Amino acid sequence: MIETTIEETNAIVESSRRAFMQWSAVPADTRASCIEAIADALDAYADTLAEVADTETHLGRPRLVGEIARTTFQLRSFATEARHPTLTAPVDNEAVDGAPPEGRPSLHKVFVPLGPVAVFGAGNFPFAFADVGGDTASALGAGCTVVIKQHPGYPRTSTEVLRIARAALEAEGMTPDVLTTVMGVDAGRALVAHPDIQAVGFTGSLEAGRSLWDIAVSRPRPIPFFGELGSANPVFITEAAVTARGETIAEDAAASIALGRGQFCTKPSLLIVPRDDEFIDLLARHLAATGEGPLLSTRSTVRFADTKAIVTTGQGVSEVLRSRIDTATGAVSAGLLQVAADDFLADHQTITTECFGPLAVVITYTTTDQLAEIAQVLEGGLVLTIHAEHPADRDTVLGLYELGKRLFGRVVTNGWPTGVAVAPAQHHGGPYPASTLAGFTSVGLQAVMRFVRPVTFQGITGSSWEELI
Amino acid sequence: MIETTIEETNAIVESSRRAFMQWSAVPADTRASCIEAIADALDAYADTLAEVADTETHLGRPRLVGEIARTTFQLRSFATEARHPTLTAPVDNEAVDGAPPEGRPSLHKVFVPLGPVAVFGAGNFPFAFADVGGDTASALGAGCTVVIKQHPGYPRTSTEVLRIARAALEAEGMTPDVLTTVMGVDAGRALVAHPDIQAVGFTGSLEAGRSLWDIAVSRPRPIPFFGELGSANPVFITEAAVTARGETIAEDAAASIALGRGQFCTKPSLLIVPRDDEFIDLLARHLAATGEGPLLSTRSTVRFADTKAIVTTGQGVSEVLRSRIDTATGAVSAGLLQVAADDFLADHQTITTECFGPLAVVITYTTTDQLAEIAQVLEGGLVLTIHAEHPADRDTVLGLYELGKRLFGRVVTNGWPTGVAVAPAQHHGGPYPASTLAGFTSVGLQAVMRFVRPVTFQGITGSSWEELI
Repeated sequence: MIETTIEETNAIVESSRRAFMQWSAVPADTRASCIEAIADALDAYADTLAEVADTETHLGRPRLVGEIARTTFQLRSFATEARHPTLTAPVDNEAVDGAPPEGRPSLHKVFVPLGPVAVFGAGNFPFAFADVGGDTASALGAGCTVVIKQHPGYPRTSTEVLRIARAALEAEGMTPDVLTTVMGVDAGRALVAHPDIQAVGFTGSLEAGRSLWDIAVSRPRPIPFFGELGSANPVFITEAAVTARGETIAEDAAASIALGRGQFCTKPSLLIVPRDDEFIDLLARHLAATGEGPLLSTRSTVRFADTKAIVTTGQGVSEVLRSRIDTATGAVSAGLLQVAADDFLADHQTITTECFGPLAVVITYTTTDQLAEIAQVLEGGLVLTIHAEHPADRDTVLGLYELGKRLFGRVVTNGWPTGVAVAPAQHHGGPYPASTLAGFTSVGLQAVMRFVRPVTFQGITGSSWEELI
Repeated sequence: MIETTIEETNAIVESSRRAFMQWSAVPADTRASCIEAIADALDAYADTLAEVADTETHLGRPRLVGEIARTTFQLRSFATEARHPTLTAPVDNEAVDGAPPEGRPSLHKVFVPLGPVAVFGAGNFPFAFADVGGDTASALGAGCTVVIKQHPGYPRTSTEVLRIARAALEAEGMTPDVLTTVMGVDAGRALVAHPDIQAVGFTGSLEAGRSLWDIAVSRPRPIPFFGELGSANPVFITEAAVTARGETIAEDAAASIALGRGQFCTKPSLLIVPRDDEFIDLLARHLAATGEGPLLSTRSTVRFADTKAIVTTGQGVSEVLRSRIDTATGAVSAGLLQVAADDFLADHQTITTECFGPLAVVITYTTTDQLAEIAQVLEGGLVLTIHAEHPADRDTVLGLYELGKRLFGRVVTNGWPTGVAVAPAQHHGGPYPASTLAGFTSVGLQAVMRFVRPVTFQGITGSSWEELI
């Protein structure tokens, strides 16, 4: 990887600033067409791109082809929003005669793009949360230009995606500098500190995200840093649910934990289940059947081994299914740990350490009081999952919905947290450390709101000045 | 003033946290009734409150009675939003069969209150931006409880308002601890750092605001800090406008500069006008006719004198109308400074120093190129004002609208910036330093969005679980 120097980074931001003058000034329809052209071009190259990405990330071609479809779906959603604004449509209030507070001049509120923004690609989604993923798509739709900090895990994929996207922009008569890139940690930090960068979209680790957040908020002029920094995602399973459909739950839980080799920020990592050896054994057997394969990189495998080792040192933690880890080839198989509720409560910080890969911790409870106590010690997270039976578990679920409203961004009932639908009612984010600004989502149409700012024009509705906005 | 100790502050936050359990759980209709009861009680005591506030702030009873009307109007607006949500209404997406990205489970997004929040009252609005002003009203409407950092400038008013508001809550059967208070700088800082405080609303100086921002964003779990930190508000006046209606513009400009003795964050502070001695003389004469009177406090008067002295040291700044300042009685009269565009460009940082009181700087230009150069050196601000004639000034106005979209939160055409209407299309905020989070407004219905967070419930629409949300 050739790292971008600070001088080069400054020049790249300057080219993004110049491109912003053009990009933010063209009609929304032109912007929409450009974004759609990027989507079309990626779709046309989907097979090649998936092949390249598979060699770099080992995520498998079917998943990668699917991820490209998600990526272009997102691009088209934000293009449509740009062309026919719903969330970013102007808001009008007519003038009202009389003294304030009832009386008022006419007000016409529009949403303007923030300027050039920085986007940090995530390691686990080489397309959908990467170069032209959700952050970039929503920023482009808003009218911002984007300087992308390329992820070091898939440089060839990233470079190829950017080449295709920039060519698509050029073919539409637009400057390709609407999308520019830097590489390297220092360039990324310089980007966040650069006075012309007006916002940051980031998906990645708590450690890296927090260090960039600190830069963004300490600038002479602070900027919003929309970071999604990972999460421990609990699944509460009631006794009635295990009795009614334990077999299915165990099978589906194993599939969700092992999906993409557990490399999702929404992976169910804590399974709070009744003390039921048969169910746990079932879960372990289903997990064992998910096989083995490489993580994103050997670095990921080392990190998986290290963080798994930390969790395993937690008070009373035992290994139900031992994860095979080959740091030479990078291959791993799924693992399952177990701990009793009281031990978990005594050492929850160790046991909730995020472990990126196919590992989950089963926390066994014997009383519903323990459920409430576990709820008390959890941190903010992306998604809370519940498996319960109606009406037997009504009170438990009510309590868990309250927990969801207090600490999570999404609550899944009798389903699984992996797979985040791209839709207007989606919310992907949650109280810190899940998100740095928990009011905003990084998935779904609402993501565009991160990259716009309202400006109200007073006293021009119906006047000759209106056409100039 | 008796300062709240850190121990007392902790106990007050704990009482706010307990009150939040009740306040956030009652039906929205009950919350709305409580907020309306606070508004009714304040209206009933308006005359007494205005009298007390006048002795503490010297703002005059008519203005203070008007400000109470604005305050109760705001409270009722947020009560209505709580009862019949528009911005915070749930968002539903039905399940769609098929594979992602088109296929998806049902999604039901709701908005939940953040928790106990802190609100810092502003010195210049003892009601509308104070204890139960816009920040508190929007937070209460969202379902948050509020710990208020009382402003030291009007302790009796503040204490009386809180007594009335808490009694109104109690009369509705609600715990009065929905609204609690602390006093003193250290208590305020402790409040922002307290782990149970989930957001901060602040209106005040850049210096105080930035120091609290630094605390909020450096916490182990950072929280959103919605600060409105003041602004230099430019007014661009074209030659055609002066020719067409110079007399009216001069008279209205003087009224806007001297309104509330210039103690508004939206006061027009920089008047960019053609080099026209007659117009400037007219403006000075109208300003002189606004008389003299006390600022909020003798401390305000000293600060006015100090900051005015700084602006006056700017390159080429001359005094057209000398402001009389009596630091003993606190009385001041309006002042007008003048500087040529080239001098301003050479020393704009000194000359744009915010001076809270009846002072404005006239910047004279001779070419339209100078207008563009002045636009280049301005900082982010709350409001940009333009006086221009159609169609003669079309190009100039187009350029100024671009400037508005880049750097300001509101753009007023052929009107004046003081007086911020309370309406859904309002935006009161702007790029830093005007606001710390420029996407949010502190005036108008949208202000409620600062104090809620989305949570999406997946897979329950149409199920038996739906009623539990």
